[in-house]
Amino acid sequence: MAKVRLGVIGIGNMGTTHIKNITDGQVQDMELTAVTDCSPERRAWAAEFLGAHFPVFADENELIQSGGIDAVLIAVPHYQHPMIAIEAFKAGLHVLCEKPSGVYTKQVREMNDAAAKSGKIFAIMFNQRTNSCFRKMHELVSGGSLGAVMRTSWIITNWFRTEAYYASGDWRGTWEGEGGGVLLNQCPHQLDLFQWICGMPRHVRAFCHNGKWHNIEVEDDVTAYLEYPNGATGTFITSTGEFPGTNRFEISLEKGKLVNEDGNEVLLHRLNTSQREFCKTSSEGFGRPECTVEKLQIENSNPQHTGVMQAFAGRILRGEPLIAEGHEGINGLILSNAMHLSSWLDKTVEIPFDEDLFLAELNKRRAASKTKPAAARCST
Amino acid sequence: MAKVRLGVIGIGNMGTTHIKNITDGQVQDMELTAVTDCSPERRAWAAEFLGAHFPVFADENELIQSGGIDAVLIAVPHYQHPMIAIEAFKAGLHVLCEKPSGVYTKQVREMNDAAAKSGKIFAIMFNQRTNSCFRKMHELVSGGSLGAVMRTSWIITNWFRTEAYYASGDWRGTWEGEGGGVLLNQCPHQLDLFQWICGMPRHVRAFCHNGKWHNIEVEDDVTAYLEYPNGATGTFITSTGEFPGTNRFEISLEKGKLVNEDGNEVLLHRLNTSQREFCKTSSEGFGRPECTVEKLQIENSNPQHTGVMQAFAGRILRGEPLIAEGHEGINGLILSNAMHLSSWLDKTVEIPFDEDLFLAELNKRRAASKTKPAAARCST
Repeated sequence: MAKVRLGVIGIGNMGTTHIKNITDGQVQDMELTAVTDCSPERRAWAAEFLGAHFPVFADENELIQSGGIDAVLIAVPHYQHPMIAIEAFKAGLHVLCEKPSGVYTKQVREMNDAAAKSGKIFAIMFNQRTNSCFRKMHELVSGGSLGAVMRTSWIITNWFRTEAYYASGDWRGTWEGEGGGVLLNQCPHQLDLFQWICGMPRHVRAFCHNGKWHNIEVEDDVTAYLEYPNGATGTFITSTGEFPGTNRFEISLEKGKLVNEDGNEVLLHRLNTSQREFCKTSSEGFGRPECTVEKLQIENSNPQHTGVMQAFAGRILRGEPLIAEGHEGINGLILSNAMHLSSWLDKTVEIPFDEDLFLAELNKRRAASKTKPAAARCST
Repeated sequence: MAKVRLGVIGIGNMGTTHIKNITDGQVQDMELTAVTDCSPERRAWAAEFLGAHFPVFADENELIQSGGIDAVLIAVPHYQHPMIAIEAFKAGLHVLCEKPSGVYTKQVREMNDAAAKSGKIFAIMFNQRTNSCFRKMHELVSGGSLGAVMRTSWIITNWFRTEAYYASGDWRGTWEGEGGGVLLNQCPHQLDLFQWICGMPRHVRAFCHNGKWHNIEVEDDVTAYLEYPNGATGTFITSTGEFPGTNRFEISLEKGKLVNEDGNEVLLHRLNTSQREFCKTSSEGFGRPECTVEKLQIENSNPQHTGVMQAFAGRILRGEPLIAEGHEGINGLILSNAMHLSSWLDKTVEIPFDEDLFLAELNKRRAASKTKPAAARCST
């Protein structure tokens, strides 16, 4: 195989961007060989853009069974990600899935199992992992030279959206259409990076406010408190109702502190000793360990989506590393599901949580949703 | 009266500082005419420092009844503040009380009632209100030009203290000695400023961790989530176990955002319109109001303790404004009591809360405290 032959499933905002990136030659090892969308208008756009003889399918199963592709990129509404991925794995295809990996972890586990069983390559579009700020934070924390995490804080409130945004599609801001609000639509990248860099908490207490700033069913304002297995605590705060908002991610560790402002600058405070040790052994009540501060050198290049796609092709062709393994997509979703469930039950939720209970609670909200399932299926 | 004749009650760390400030002539309208402390060593220091004929009392009631003073400054352990203030008001004296105003709101209400009944001047040592950063934030928020508060966040984790600090007095870090940890000892200023600038929340959900970083009875790590009467949310995060820690106070409002870093710099983001209005009326999903950013001009002068004392004397002599009215001391204590109670009961606490329940819960912890009441009475 000289290049990976890719079929794009879903020609909405993201699908269109991916199609253009490939046809522009921005993903060296990939060629576009098929697309599909349930919408006749979008298929007409694709036929116009890709030429009259290009394979444009009305149904993703036709594309999957077409024989002209090695891999699919799934860019349809959130609920359908696992189901379509499972079909693709069954057909022996590699899968690159848009975020979030799904709406509820139960369906994502089935997808992960299908991926493992198939032996095919499974990747997820966590394009913010290509940002060298976050890569450096991941390396510094997981490398261990800063010691254990003591506290985390991410204030990510710069997702301002107007009423017009939510009014732009019937499915937007609904339980049946999106399966959640800011946690499912805007925050999957941050939730993934949060767990990738800081690890998973053992329990979560969240306060989600539905339709607080907008006329929507789902949450547009969240404050979550987390506790980690080692006793560290953390907060995650987000909103689509605030302008200018803030993007500030801070991690306190035994031997330092990392502060990332706006995703493009990282300050590293490094102590000359473990503060836990210093706290116990210093003879001075107001003593302090020595601390140096440096601004980390950040690489300008950030390939984002095309970087994820090229890495996916590189894995298929040559066994190279992925940007994000597909099965890791469940972690950020566990965080957002736990935040939803905590807020719905008005109590602290242990991780792992009761996934059947989560689904039952979600389905109550879907049943009352103004969006109907048929409309939700063809929506992005 | 040419100058206010002041009696200082308690010659510990703070009392000593106040005595030196007055004898140095740093409080123009005040003269020191008596001091008292239960500790013979401290009385010996005072006799040495102030001269053999200076009135040094072994008991605060002797000082209060001595006839040689117009006002008292109370700088003894937290629990005794209200009781001594009430005695002073009964004796017709003006009162300047160190923070916190007490340990539990029930006793502070009695003090506030006694103050009101006496008609005497009652002030509290909130010396951080003289910092022009906080004054400007107070003016901007209460002035209304930035619209209603939408979210608050104060991360105040730069209170690093070693084990040696807590080991320096038997009473330190105990329920009987201090009545709390970081919330009672380190944070009264921030809790006062928080409510002074942002108003009081209607309920609080807090997660206090006792002895998490130190071998102490009380909390040294707190995360609190707040909801305000208008629906705004907030967080308050503090610790004495983290270095270098952070001091970052952010307020999002309908027409702007304020960010105070390290108590000495304020960034003001000002919108050209209410974002709530913009959100509702913009035709663009990703539209944003115009926003300008400026660094506020901050005055260098910050008189701190002597500013509070001079204002107190100015009120007594000439009816001038106080830096902080004594009865306002209860607000920050309501916040800290509510945070403690929420954590003890493991649930959200409405404000006002059940003050008898708080005291019963506190007394359980005092009864189990390693510090005994007698030791606690003569401790700072």
